[in-house]
Amino acid sequence: MAATTRLTMDKTKMSLAHDVGQQINSTAFSINGRDYHPPAVPMAVICIDGCADEYLAISLAKGVMPRLAKMLESGHRSLVRGALPSFTNVNNSAIVTGCPPAKTGIGGNYIIDPHTGQEVMTNSSKFLKLETILAAAANAGRKVAMVTAKDKLRELLSKNMNGIAFSTEKADELNVEVNGIDDIVSQVGPRPEIYSADASLYVLRSGVYLIESGLADFCYLTTTDYMQHKFAPEAPESLEFYRGIDAEIGRLLDLGCVVAATADHGMNAKCDLDGNPNVIYLETELVSKFGEGIQVICPITDPYVVHHGALGSAVTVYLPNHIDANEVANWILSLDGVAEVHQKHSAVSKLELPADRIGDLFVLSTRDFVIGRTRQHHDLSQLAGQLRSHGGRYEEMVPLLLSHPLNDVYYKKSQGDPRNFDIFDFACNGVVVTTN
Amino acid sequence: MAATTRLTMDKTKMSLAHDVGQQINSTAFSINGRDYHPPAVPMAVICIDGCADEYLAISLAKGVMPRLAKMLESGHRSLVRGALPSFTNVNNSAIVTGCPPAKTGIGGNYIIDPHTGQEVMTNSSKFLKLETILAAAANAGRKVAMVTAKDKLRELLSKNMNGIAFSTEKADELNVEVNGIDDIVSQVGPRPEIYSADASLYVLRSGVYLIESGLADFCYLTTTDYMQHKFAPEAPESLEFYRGIDAEIGRLLDLGCVVAATADHGMNAKCDLDGNPNVIYLETELVSKFGEGIQVICPITDPYVVHHGALGSAVTVYLPNHIDANEVANWILSLDGVAEVHQKHSAVSKLELPADRIGDLFVLSTRDFVIGRTRQHHDLSQLAGQLRSHGGRYEEMVPLLLSHPLNDVYYKKSQGDPRNFDIFDFACNGVVVTTN
Repeated sequence: MAATTRLTMDKTKMSLAHDVGQQINSTAFSINGRDYHPPAVPMAVICIDGCADEYLAISLAKGVMPRLAKMLESGHRSLVRGALPSFTNVNNSAIVTGCPPAKTGIGGNYIIDPHTGQEVMTNSSKFLKLETILAAAANAGRKVAMVTAKDKLRELLSKNMNGIAFSTEKADELNVEVNGIDDIVSQVGPRPEIYSADASLYVLRSGVYLIESGLADFCYLTTTDYMQHKFAPEAPESLEFYRGIDAEIGRLLDLGCVVAATADHGMNAKCDLDGNPNVIYLETELVSKFGEGIQVICPITDPYVVHHGALGSAVTVYLPNHIDANEVANWILSLDGVAEVHQKHSAVSKLELPADRIGDLFVLSTRDFVIGRTRQHHDLSQLAGQLRSHGGRYEEMVPLLLSHPLNDVYYKKSQGDPRNFDIFDFACNGVVVTTN
Repeated sequence: MAATTRLTMDKTKMSLAHDVGQQINSTAFSINGRDYHPPAVPMAVICIDGCADEYLAISLAKGVMPRLAKMLESGHRSLVRGALPSFTNVNNSAIVTGCPPAKTGIGGNYIIDPHTGQEVMTNSSKFLKLETILAAAANAGRKVAMVTAKDKLRELLSKNMNGIAFSTEKADELNVEVNGIDDIVSQVGPRPEIYSADASLYVLRSGVYLIESGLADFCYLTTTDYMQHKFAPEAPESLEFYRGIDAEIGRLLDLGCVVAATADHGMNAKCDLDGNPNVIYLETELVSKFGEGIQVICPITDPYVVHHGALGSAVTVYLPNHIDANEVANWILSLDGVAEVHQKHSAVSKLELPADRIGDLFVLSTRDFVIGRTRQHHDLSQLAGQLRSHGGRYEEMVPLLLSHPLNDVYYKKSQGDPRNFDIFDFACNGVVVTTN
């Protein structure tokens, strides 16, 4: 497929927006136990990284998202439950497969690899245990494109995918072999800095371009949460960012897309009233109380430390054999700022985590606390301003937005306990698309 | 005070809306460890029973709450954490005292009274361990009124309060001795049925009347969740109900009020895709597994069974001495539909519950499940339509709405982990009221 990309682009460059739908393959496909019946119009499924529902509520209240407001008059909005721990790799992997972490194998951005015993980032498709909806859609004849902000997600999520896949972060280093396209900057603009609002807006603009040009008709666009880590929903910077998101959603709607959006996780302030971070350095505490050999892994850890200093609302704890897990669990639960402590069996059954890639305990913090390892593991000097983060139960519920009304079956599904990783199911099977 | 009510009413009947503020006592007062500085304008603090944030999101999206939409352009909206279990008496008691259940003593609508061993409803101020903000405001010279939908809350919440207190449910049975007023129906209209939208709207209309007439300038208005139990946010009946709420909020704003609104709890559908209730009959399960003598108490139980059939998302379990709490806790946690199981110590420290009024275990269900006692304890035939209910973690987060912007200190407070029972604090101390 890759080799023909440039040709395809040239052929379709002049196609008009309202003609796009006519060329679209709507062959059904099945993957990971579900059937998908994509509509014969372009689809843009968006993961707005860190988009707690409050960002939408405030942005709509302040009038900076007029296109979304209009879309919701006839479309769908509700809350869906994400995967725990509420981190980026975990939820993006769940979304592109339609399955929880116990099945994807991705229960953190950062894990101890059970085969090597080494601490590693899960930024590789070798850790993803399932095939993806994106790959299956491409195999069924859709023109698939996946655009990420952070390059860490690009290879992971485009596993075995025949189509276009690139990141904002490396938008100026594309080649057809790897990315299915060798130029984006001449069309969408120069590569923005990764620590910027534009890093995310560029993802959406790329989606608009790919659909408008006919290069793609089945897109997964996943942004970065730099802005949400840095700014509360009411901040002028947030409002400006969401105004930008709204404009791109508007362009996708103008192209006749089914637009579906959710988030990988929410976001909460993690500070006391003076602005100091509320942090539990859990490994330090545990070693002091129970002795050496206890290891705390922070699954939020990724290469982008300015966001959060590797401090999130969930950690996993590895215990030496001689230490009683029950006793340690009860002691951790007694700490202020800890909301839940799961032993491995309930981490697997209740949090849907992969048993082989977590420790003996899994710990979730309260709404305003984060959990770290030791003070030395976290460089707080890199945090720009207030600490805002995610990973726990209080960042689990996220919005589901659909440009079209739901059919009866999926309206019922939207009640109860729908998940953010049902979004392709909702977008393919759940919406009523009336073509003129 | 009661004896003078009628005279006061006559005197003030002709006061114009824009004059109301001029007569208002803004003396500060302290209660339960907090200082309150009420503004010199009328205040209406509203608890919209069962108002999950989705009700507002959808109602705003569909354009049925234009006054709220306008209010939020300059006012405040965020999410606050309610008290667990997320039930009505628990959260109303917390709101009127500014304290969690561990301090109010009200950890359920229905408890085992530790003094008698009997199962009782907590619809009496004798169970409330604290004095209220309402009573303190009245003592400081405010004209306080409290209007409830259900009469069960009226006596509980008006403990030692010198002012007006009545319920929609008994609006045609008022007398000055008990209610501080002997006529409302001639002004607000005939008493509506308790199972109706009007039961709640009547509460708000009463507040409008009491403020407009000068009878009150510090109101707590608390509605009933019949509509939310019965209808999802998108249902036409819900939209019509919220249109009605919006109109009354608009009237309060026109009277120059500081309007503050929150909810006691959210609301979720508790059914499978065929509409059958997802119920765990926990006492039946436990007796079958561990033997006789185990007792499950459903703290949602109240006299209004049409709402929910006494099925909610939280129960407490009393164990005979010979049964190991840890073993039972682990077994309960293994059940599908159970999210969290707390033993007494963590129910007290993490859920802030009163130790003397709960059992040995406290159990919270998942988003789409409820927990009952035995099949015989729950009359599902009375449920009208789909089961929607509350009581657990997934009904814990609720909206906070304020008509005025927050000052800097309370904006910081609104980040982090603010609570629904901080609402009087926010309304008295947190808003910037500019008087012309």
